[in-house]
Amino acid sequence: MTIKAYGAQAGDQPLESMDITRRTPGEHDVQIEIAYCGVCHSDLHQVREEWAGTLFPCVPGHEIVGRVAAVGEHVKDFKSGDLVGVGCIVDSCKHCEDCDEGLENYCDHMVGTYNGPTPDAPGHTLGGYSQQIVVHQRYVLRIRHPEAQLAAVAPLLCAGITTYSPLRHWKVGPGKKVGVVGIGGLGHMGIKLAHAMGGHVVAFTTSESKREAAKALGADEVVVSRNPEEMVAQANSLDFILNTVAVPHDLDAFFALLKRDGTMALVGAPATPHPSPQVFSLITKRRSLAGSMIGGIPETQEMLDFCAEHGIVADIEMIRADQINQAYERMLKGDVKYRFVIDSASLAL
Amino acid sequence: MTIKAYGAQAGDQPLESMDITRRTPGEHDVQIEIAYCGVCHSDLHQVREEWAGTLFPCVPGHEIVGRVAAVGEHVKDFKSGDLVGVGCIVDSCKHCEDCDEGLENYCDHMVGTYNGPTPDAPGHTLGGYSQQIVVHQRYVLRIRHPEAQLAAVAPLLCAGITTYSPLRHWKVGPGKKVGVVGIGGLGHMGIKLAHAMGGHVVAFTTSESKREAAKALGADEVVVSRNPEEMVAQANSLDFILNTVAVPHDLDAFFALLKRDGTMALVGAPATPHPSPQVFSLITKRRSLAGSMIGGIPETQEMLDFCAEHGIVADIEMIRADQINQAYERMLKGDVKYRFVIDSASLAL
Repeated sequence: MTIKAYGAQAGDQPLESMDITRRTPGEHDVQIEIAYCGVCHSDLHQVREEWAGTLFPCVPGHEIVGRVAAVGEHVKDFKSGDLVGVGCIVDSCKHCEDCDEGLENYCDHMVGTYNGPTPDAPGHTLGGYSQQIVVHQRYVLRIRHPEAQLAAVAPLLCAGITTYSPLRHWKVGPGKKVGVVGIGGLGHMGIKLAHAMGGHVVAFTTSESKREAAKALGADEVVVSRNPEEMVAQANSLDFILNTVAVPHDLDAFFALLKRDGTMALVGAPATPHPSPQVFSLITKRRSLAGSMIGGIPETQEMLDFCAEHGIVADIEMIRADQINQAYERMLKGDVKYRFVIDSASLAL
Repeated sequence: MTIKAYGAQAGDQPLESMDITRRTPGEHDVQIEIAYCGVCHSDLHQVREEWAGTLFPCVPGHEIVGRVAAVGEHVKDFKSGDLVGVGCIVDSCKHCEDCDEGLENYCDHMVGTYNGPTPDAPGHTLGGYSQQIVVHQRYVLRIRHPEAQLAAVAPLLCAGITTYSPLRHWKVGPGKKVGVVGIGGLGHMGIKLAHAMGGHVVAFTTSESKREAAKALGADEVVVSRNPEEMVAQANSLDFILNTVAVPHDLDAFFALLKRDGTMALVGAPATPHPSPQVFSLITKRRSLAGSMIGGIPETQEMLDFCAEHGIVADIEMIRADQINQAYERMLKGDVKYRFVIDSASLAL
């Protein structure tokens, strides 16, 4: 079928309305009528060729929510009308150790929701800035939030799981003091989730102006990282730091805040590396610098259920598809609280 | 008492014979007649002021073995004549969380065997390139190796525990594939220990000429890291990497060899940082870069007992104290297999 989408024909071109095709659902496929799609910083990196290997036309979008429109004959867990989501992953090898453990995000053959290899036209996957998507049932998530929250659920599919997975993996919970660096699309979810998990949350921001907002999101303490006294007061006190900042910055300043055996996990991927950390920052307290990428499908479902149970959604600003280029410019200035979401109905306009 | 030692009066001066004093043993002290002292790369860094804050006169040496000469009245576990060792630590606060857990090496008030604060003259600790040392009993280790191996036991007190501690902490053992990068003083112990723990050991060296030697030390495989095909063959296969190289080098080449959730622990401390690791190296497989520093006192005893049980000692080359300056020059060229040890009897000559 042919549907409307929004994408770019080249890295230096703005996004525009275009027609794309979706495959007829196979026996394990779920066809989804997209209601909303969140706007992730990765979308911008990829479509503007700031990351290598962008294939055009490029239709970004991997924070997809909507309703099931049709299902293949071997699909048992979903039926027409169900509220569902699709995140960053639409395929993987399904038989490696990572897939067997439900960590499809680390499978060497993981297929991204856009810019990934596929036999479907045009030979690479096209994302959620579109009216419909067809996805193998394994990669479809059930949404248990009230329908009225659907738009604000969309960002959970990337920003939510990208922060939830490392918070769980490094065992954030009651009695643990956790830092969240950066209060943007990822960071605002990190604060909400770490708070709901029972951790003592210290939010780090470069802007004095974000102090109250961070508290409102659930931070127990807020540190303006440009203020040396506030930083020193946190020295050797954090069990874990979730660092969401995707621009190169001084990591040593944050290592100094970790306790012995503490870990700082990076979830932002800057185009150039961070300044190199001092080896002494690591060895003097057996600290670790780690990275974490999205999350697996079972833990994405777990995250959605956790959020539904705790009433957690993203803070969003709704836009029409034809506002996306302008939205990207605002994202680059940090001028969004905290996630843009495209109303997919606007694609038909 | 006044004893002979070997040390330097300034960072740009050679080491020379000098007289120093040791305190009269207090009630918790053990006075040790030093038999041998290993020569660690840290000794050279410190005495030549390549690390900040060197205090002069500087007497290096923290791989000390010998016999108990006298004990204070509250010392119950040691008596005159016992074979004992002293490593990198001669004091700590004794009441923080780290000390309570036997991880004195991470105590904020850990006192190094040389260049640490002390009320004893001259106001900083003087190390094992000397005839005697007086140490609080908490920091004295029992040696269960045969006396004939005593000289070769000395390097276990730093090179041994510095590699043993991370190998244990990151759970190297049967079924685990572990890389050891660098085959020098630390690396040769890392290979022996990881092999004795039951791990499958892959040694990495830049020198084709070290291939056979690494196998003799216990490596199951040896990879010449300058050979791209050999490196690629190890991709995504290692559970853990112990990186002993103390000069800046490309870490990404080794990250690529770690499995998902693998850790590379740095135990060498270069004077300048390594080139910055790529964030994608970490996030794509949830890998970690960690650091580890020496080990605690209980685990140092555990390591010595493990080595005694498995017949493990260092490979050493014995020198006289007056050969130390020449030995440093050879260390800088990597011309030692694998550790110099000073025969303390030569101090009296």
